[in-house]
Amino acid sequence: MQGRLRLGIAGLGTVGAATIKILTDRRAHLSQALGVDLDVTAVSARDRSRDRGFTLGDATWFDDAKALAVSDEIDVYVELIGGEEGVARESVEAAISAGKHVVTANKALLAHHGTQLAGLVEAQKLALKFEAAVAGGIPVIKTMRESLIGNEVTRLYGILNGTCNYILSRMTFEGGEFNTILKEAQEAGYAEADPTFDIGGFDAAHKLALLTSLAFGTEVAFENVYVEGIENISLADVEAADDLGYVIKLLGVAVQTESGIEQRVHPAMVPKTAGIAGVNGVTNCVAIEANPVGEVLLVGPGAGGGATASSVVSDIADIARGEITPAFVTSADRLMPSVRGPMRAHAGGYYIRLSVHDRPGAFAAIATRMAHEDVSLESIVQRRVDANAGQDAAQVIMITHETTEAAIRAALAGIEADGHIVGAPQMIRIERT
Amino acid sequence: MQGRLRLGIAGLGTVGAATIKILTDRRAHLSQALGVDLDVTAVSARDRSRDRGFTLGDATWFDDAKALAVSDEIDVYVELIGGEEGVARESVEAAISAGKHVVTANKALLAHHGTQLAGLVEAQKLALKFEAAVAGGIPVIKTMRESLIGNEVTRLYGILNGTCNYILSRMTFEGGEFNTILKEAQEAGYAEADPTFDIGGFDAAHKLALLTSLAFGTEVAFENVYVEGIENISLADVEAADDLGYVIKLLGVAVQTESGIEQRVHPAMVPKTAGIAGVNGVTNCVAIEANPVGEVLLVGPGAGGGATASSVVSDIADIARGEITPAFVTSADRLMPSVRGPMRAHAGGYYIRLSVHDRPGAFAAIATRMAHEDVSLESIVQRRVDANAGQDAAQVIMITHETTEAAIRAALAGIEADGHIVGAPQMIRIERT
Repeated sequence: MQGRLRLGIAGLGTVGAATIKILTDRRAHLSQALGVDLDVTAVSARDRSRDRGFTLGDATWFDDAKALAVSDEIDVYVELIGGEEGVARESVEAAISAGKHVVTANKALLAHHGTQLAGLVEAQKLALKFEAAVAGGIPVIKTMRESLIGNEVTRLYGILNGTCNYILSRMTFEGGEFNTILKEAQEAGYAEADPTFDIGGFDAAHKLALLTSLAFGTEVAFENVYVEGIENISLADVEAADDLGYVIKLLGVAVQTESGIEQRVHPAMVPKTAGIAGVNGVTNCVAIEANPVGEVLLVGPGAGGGATASSVVSDIADIARGEITPAFVTSADRLMPSVRGPMRAHAGGYYIRLSVHDRPGAFAAIATRMAHEDVSLESIVQRRVDANAGQDAAQVIMITHETTEAAIRAALAGIEADGHIVGAPQMIRIERT
Repeated sequence: MQGRLRLGIAGLGTVGAATIKILTDRRAHLSQALGVDLDVTAVSARDRSRDRGFTLGDATWFDDAKALAVSDEIDVYVELIGGEEGVARESVEAAISAGKHVVTANKALLAHHGTQLAGLVEAQKLALKFEAAVAGGIPVIKTMRESLIGNEVTRLYGILNGTCNYILSRMTFEGGEFNTILKEAQEAGYAEADPTFDIGGFDAAHKLALLTSLAFGTEVAFENVYVEGIENISLADVEAADDLGYVIKLLGVAVQTESGIEQRVHPAMVPKTAGIAGVNGVTNCVAIEANPVGEVLLVGPGAGGGATASSVVSDIADIARGEITPAFVTSADRLMPSVRGPMRAHAGGYYIRLSVHDRPGAFAAIATRMAHEDVSLESIVQRRVDANAGQDAAQVIMITHETTEAAIRAALAGIEADGHIVGAPQMIRIERT
């Protein structure tokens, strides 16, 4: 006899609707491949009267997601509400207490409470699946959890926020300034009215925290992520990057270092020849460096209803197959505490852009500050008169050899204190790829 | 109590050795994550006395892989011998008859007997896993089988042979001729002494046949793959591609068309801006276009002991978790017969390179032949005197708008018959990306 898995879906926005569409359109295929019928038996959303363009069949309507989460009519609670607290968290916890498996696309919830929730499900031998929470339709969670299980991850890095990548790509290809393109992105629906969460790097940081836990077997530690957004990237940086053979991307990077695990989200210079350099627009990607596999790069749509729903359905299918594995590969009670690799110990090359007053001694002072911190330069270019900074200022671009964040910050503080530059120095990390 | 999965590994070459190394080095992690100990209890290889740089512990040695395959000491038969017939096939069939799960890296075996073997395992509720058979360390089988289960695949294409990609990449970057670089690749160990299997496209065709079955729910139909190798790609083509904004890659493509499923392996022009254009050297990639997810691109090492062993261990881990799913997503008895989309119906743009005698009427005759077959040209460039073809010949490069393979072949046959060209026309398909 064919088994049956009863699904309760909370949240009927773009992703919820697309999930129901897949479960309807592909019902026969899924049933046959899984040996289990996937039935949406209950749903919940804020507004029952809204026309969503599809019928809910026999599914029971719940006004309250928490009531749906504990309903006897479901085996799996699919949480597509969002938000790190409130009804999303309460309903997920209630569902687990009531013995339901959980599928969620909620990166904020997991970034803040992932370890705790993993412990709750594992105590009851339930599943907590979240492929849709990171990089939309890219199967990165399953890849890390299952495909790379024989490997030791040494580093992962990726483009984890489509809004930022869209803006930086347009700045690169069209030569617009950040604010202009952000405004157009908002009008086109690629950026929120309040874009802080995306362009400030926080969305990418949520996703990075989850990937880090999977990669290194550590507790989810969003609080240990260093976060810097793209607000201060100017067209001058994008153009200088292009001249130097780089593109600027907002990267999330997690790497094991001697002093701990660096988790960082920041704009980075990536060589044009790197695989991820060509990932443009709202597309996301994740590169995983591991032993013995080498580097695996996954590229795909980072958002959108259909892409995200594809991942939600993949998680549901796993549960239908009986794949009840620890949420973060290692069981929650054995996850190691995350030791933060401090940013000041970060080692790498740096791009520095300064607007320097054109007067005797200015360059010597800058060079002295660099030398004093043992920062050696790979290249230094005076590009042109800096139109933004007045006629007496020249734009100076420096690329350093590998140094530390502590050294570069000390050198820049000294340069700023010397008073030879206009405004603050610009500093962008160069990421090895 | 911790469960135990007993593994019998046949074939202790590079991949077998790397598999044992992972199972040894990562034993504690795998046991903890899977809740099952993975024990190599038996091995087999041709030469027992050879020093392989590792100890086999308590594993029982079998001189005969078929005896190992049916041994009471194993639960999973890991076939790393290779070859479509002989001991590989016989031992796999014997293992299945004896109730063993099978993990294999053997693309030739599965390309020729995949449907039959899938039927055998499914009748006994056993697993047949082959992540390592396609694209080495790239988790493409799991992605198609599990992550994209909610999707309808419309097309897939990829760089599936590292040797070809290595040679084409070097021709592109260094400007060498095919034969020179092939010879160097052989000396460096990137190409076999008899390179026909790789450079003729047959290795890629084996892999493509497996991906096609997974993508479209059809029986494995290697005999339906159109195969063309890279032997005839000259530096003139690589340089012309570069001028026109393309790179040349050996692609495997499977696409659903009105007349059936096109499965084809051939050199293709790919726009430099495409994600796969930057995949160079021995790296492989697979792009999957599916609804509703969009396009997912996976890039990684296509060969090598560690990368391939990573996939072998992933398959073993799946079995340890109890993931006994149909080998090709759809159960073998429900796979549809593969209806071949004939190459003559293939629709696309074409690159044509001709060495044309510089005499009155030559161009007019060529243009007339094209027009007669309704082939319209996007561009036509007379590049220079063709040094290879003598002083009176000019090299003419044409890019066509979309047309059919039948039309282009008829036009080229006519052009050749007219006698205005030196040698045979060169034709390379342009792949939309």
